[in-house]
Amino acid sequence: MPNERVLQPSWLALVAVLVMPAAADDLGERIATQGPPGGTAACATCHGHNGGGDEGVAFPRLAGLNAGYLARQLRAFRDGGRDNPIMRPMAQPLTDAEVVAVSAYYAALPPASNAKPPTEVSTTIGGVLVAEGDWFNRSLPACAQCHARDGLGAGDAFPALAGQIYSYILGQIDAWATGKRIADPHGLMSPIAARLNLDEAKSLAAYYAAMGVAPAPVAGATQGTGVPTDVTPLVQPGVGRAETQATATGPVGPPLDHGPVDTGRPQGSAGIFHPPARNTAPKDRMGEAIRLGEAIFIGTFSHPESARYVGNTQTCEGCHLDAGRLAGAAPMWAAWVAYPAFRTKNQRLNTIAERIQGCFTYSMNAPASTVGHAPEAESDTLVALQSYIYWLATGAPTGDSGMPGRGYPTLDPTPQGFDPDRGAGVYQTVCAVCHGNDGQGTWVRGELLFPPLWGAKSYNWGAGMHRIDTAAGYIRHNMPLGPATRLSDQDAWDVAAFINAQERPQDPRFNGDLAETTRLYHASRYDYYGKRSGPDGRPLGDEPAKR
Amino acid sequence: MPNERVLQPSWLALVAVLVMPAAADDLGERIATQGPPGGTAACATCHGHNGGGDEGVAFPRLAGLNAGYLARQLRAFRDGGRDNPIMRPMAQPLTDAEVVAVSAYYAALPPASNAKPPTEVSTTIGGVLVAEGDWFNRSLPACAQCHARDGLGAGDAFPALAGQIYSYILGQIDAWATGKRIADPHGLMSPIAARLNLDEAKSLAAYYAAMGVAPAPVAGATQGTGVPTDVTPLVQPGVGRAETQATATGPVGPPLDHGPVDTGRPQGSAGIFHPPARNTAPKDRMGEAIRLGEAIFIGTFSHPESARYVGNTQTCEGCHLDAGRLAGAAPMWAAWVAYPAFRTKNQRLNTIAERIQGCFTYSMNAPASTVGHAPEAESDTLVALQSYIYWLATGAPTGDSGMPGRGYPTLDPTPQGFDPDRGAGVYQTVCAVCHGNDGQGTWVRGELLFPPLWGAKSYNWGAGMHRIDTAAGYIRHNMPLGPATRLSDQDAWDVAAFINAQERPQDPRFNGDLAETTRLYHASRYDYYGKRSGPDGRPLGDEPAKR
Repeated sequence: MPNERVLQPSWLALVAVLVMPAAADDLGERIATQGPPGGTAACATCHGHNGGGDEGVAFPRLAGLNAGYLARQLRAFRDGGRDNPIMRPMAQPLTDAEVVAVSAYYAALPPASNAKPPTEVSTTIGGVLVAEGDWFNRSLPACAQCHARDGLGAGDAFPALAGQIYSYILGQIDAWATGKRIADPHGLMSPIAARLNLDEAKSLAAYYAAMGVAPAPVAGATQGTGVPTDVTPLVQPGVGRAETQATATGPVGPPLDHGPVDTGRPQGSAGIFHPPARNTAPKDRMGEAIRLGEAIFIGTFSHPESARYVGNTQTCEGCHLDAGRLAGAAPMWAAWVAYPAFRTKNQRLNTIAERIQGCFTYSMNAPASTVGHAPEAESDTLVALQSYIYWLATGAPTGDSGMPGRGYPTLDPTPQGFDPDRGAGVYQTVCAVCHGNDGQGTWVRGELLFPPLWGAKSYNWGAGMHRIDTAAGYIRHNMPLGPATRLSDQDAWDVAAFINAQERPQDPRFNGDLAETTRLYHASRYDYYGKRSGPDGRPLGDEPAKR
Repeated sequence: MPNERVLQPSWLALVAVLVMPAAADDLGERIATQGPPGGTAACATCHGHNGGGDEGVAFPRLAGLNAGYLARQLRAFRDGGRDNPIMRPMAQPLTDAEVVAVSAYYAALPPASNAKPPTEVSTTIGGVLVAEGDWFNRSLPACAQCHARDGLGAGDAFPALAGQIYSYILGQIDAWATGKRIADPHGLMSPIAARLNLDEAKSLAAYYAAMGVAPAPVAGATQGTGVPTDVTPLVQPGVGRAETQATATGPVGPPLDHGPVDTGRPQGSAGIFHPPARNTAPKDRMGEAIRLGEAIFIGTFSHPESARYVGNTQTCEGCHLDAGRLAGAAPMWAAWVAYPAFRTKNQRLNTIAERIQGCFTYSMNAPASTVGHAPEAESDTLVALQSYIYWLATGAPTGDSGMPGRGYPTLDPTPQGFDPDRGAGVYQTVCAVCHGNDGQGTWVRGELLFPPLWGAKSYNWGAGMHRIDTAAGYIRHNMPLGPATRLSDQDAWDVAAFINAQERPQDPRFNGDLAETTRLYHASRYDYYGKRSGPDGRPLGDEPAKR
């Protein structure tokens, strides 16, 4: 069960915590401070009595890390997933129970760090990589995308890096880049590490080491920031780590082998438009609007300016990756120059403003209380978004409706068609690590790292992404994040069908008659609305009282 | 008095008509049918008994033409302004009274045409030149701009061409092009004729000859089409010709000599953006919106879609010449790629939609009954205008706020400054022939050929054009229409000051306090609002009840 979801409350997890014998904690402490029964050295000898690690010999900080993550590493040392000449003999005598016990012990220790990053290493480029990545040139998502803006990680898949030992981080980046360490989820880290040069790796390591154990979140980069007052996080801030102590899992396993690896995104390729680099907007009133637009784009559901128009916990960036820059992920620069345009969807000419309003109406499931289910054309939100998108399109030729990389790539049908039941397996194997077993995304400490894919906080039945073909094309070419494994065409079709066979908020065009609404707006064979039974046995969309 | 205004009711004109002795008509008829007392041939001998001209010998149609125009030509033949070996001896014996009498006779004859254009000559390119001109490549305004969409002309300056003799039109184009005929207002026709090739001249002549004497107006090209229900034309359709019979004037004189002639506009120059050619919008729903936008742009105050948003008789094209294409006349392609942008005027980020709304609020003096003094963002009018402007910008680089030809050229100050009193003379000499002695523009037969420049039907005190510097730059580089004479810098400054020293609709930002409104919005030294007395002795803008 390499991808078991560990961040959400479940009665199994609660039971496990409640029934865990007190002796287990004692066992963990004993191993840490005195060594395991078999006789090897105490963990604290090398990792510090406070568990804060040792900078001089590149031994990592353990105190306060996620128990599941720690256990997975111990098993990997023991079973060969991580090839380390010092840790292998330490881990080899440990039973599974002892692995769990000592991991839980360190997870429960007060967070501590003995990191001493070298003062001569600049953290500048590291900070940029943490907050922004380098998606354009190297398909590198922001580190914070998975490790969270505060650097404290998420669940057992994405460890805390803040306050980690500088020399340890640097060594691990090297281990990933050279194939010595491979036991990360879906092989995400190896291609990322391989694309960093030594100066960047040093800067990153110094940046994280200098953050300490109680860091302030960095700006930007991730999909949702802050919890709006009307949203209940699925996992309360701070809860995740305790839960995961009882549900620690083994190694996630080697990179998936059922799809080709994209070695590079089209975005940085020849012939692909280059939007302006981040943080280069002018320092004037126009620049203010651009920056506001970018902030709204990234944090739509929680940004004070735009939150009122969002009825779920989605952001523009959730579908338009790299803050709207990424070719093949419906980049905004390609959209800007293609509007006004006639849209079949609403049978009228749409300005870019009306097109964006459509995103709010459907993808953001704007509350019915908003005028027209969207921000007004003259609202600060819509003006700022237009300013940002316009700026992204700087230099793009007006009227070019076919810029390479526009929209999502079309995925050819496969002989097997698409099947939600097959897709369920793909989802659990690949997608759940980020989006959750229940599809409700990942919240950590008030930050939404990955968006919900169905349910009340997802896009509604009118959003483009509810179409199986659209979602399949998007998933095939963009998921998982980063320059890692891609799904096969077949898996992309199946998992898109699975996701869109779940219930979600009502189509705002619903007129009270499911059959007629289906006929009017959901006739496509790539659309389950009104045609397939949902998990509750009723036809999808058959909830007149919704919204 | 070469530029005397003849299209508007005035008691002088009415008196002249009323007191004209019946004998004068008899005199005219006698000259026409029997020859003048001195003994030369009767006009009808060559021009036809119906006054419809003679195609075989290139003698023009006279019946139904404007009396003032006819009288001016007779004097020109008599006095040497037109050098014609046949007409000179005919005209030489005529007294001024006889000139007026025979001109009035022919003007009052039922319109007739003996034109027989050769069937092998295509009228296609002629029709395009009539409706659209070729402003882009050769600075040629549409023929219909001055001769009216129905080809029946305007006043004594712009003769009827519809139903005119083919061979006569062709001969006159040649005479203008070669300098043999020069007595047209401000030398407008010579540079136009010189830019036509023989095939075009033939096609034009055939087009007009084939129109007959009761033609249907051609589409497009001129500034206002049709009279909206809430607008009272300053001159009722059909009234103009009768009036002018009594106020016929002599030759307008040679081209003005106090300013250089622009031999070509910047628009067709190297480095100037080329918008799509007319009539090349796609044949789809987008194309429909583009065409609707173009029609609104050209006929704003009278178009059924946009009329409700216009409180005067202005059009977009009135300031943005060549349907928004012309470099140096605030071309729309340059504006499209420069928005959104921060505007000092309203201290906020403006999308192109809001920028256009500003034009309605001020330049079109939108009725207070409209929401926000402008079309709503989602209105068909604003969507269509955006579609049209977007299309005009096809290929223009997004974000380029400095495309060559954007806006109006800036005019450097002159040592003499600017003076409305000096400008009054310039106005009467140059501008009044089109815009009227009273600045109220030219209406003919329900069509507005030239827009009002002040008064209730002009732009209001908030429009950019009310600024003397803006108007001076516009006038210097764009007026009069066509590739003809330009004013000197000094005359442009002075006439801009004169025009903007007249009263016009209140600034919609007026808050009831003239001094404060002046301080807030009219502090510029190029702005007379609240600072100079108007023709009625009260400060300009001092009319709280206005609008």
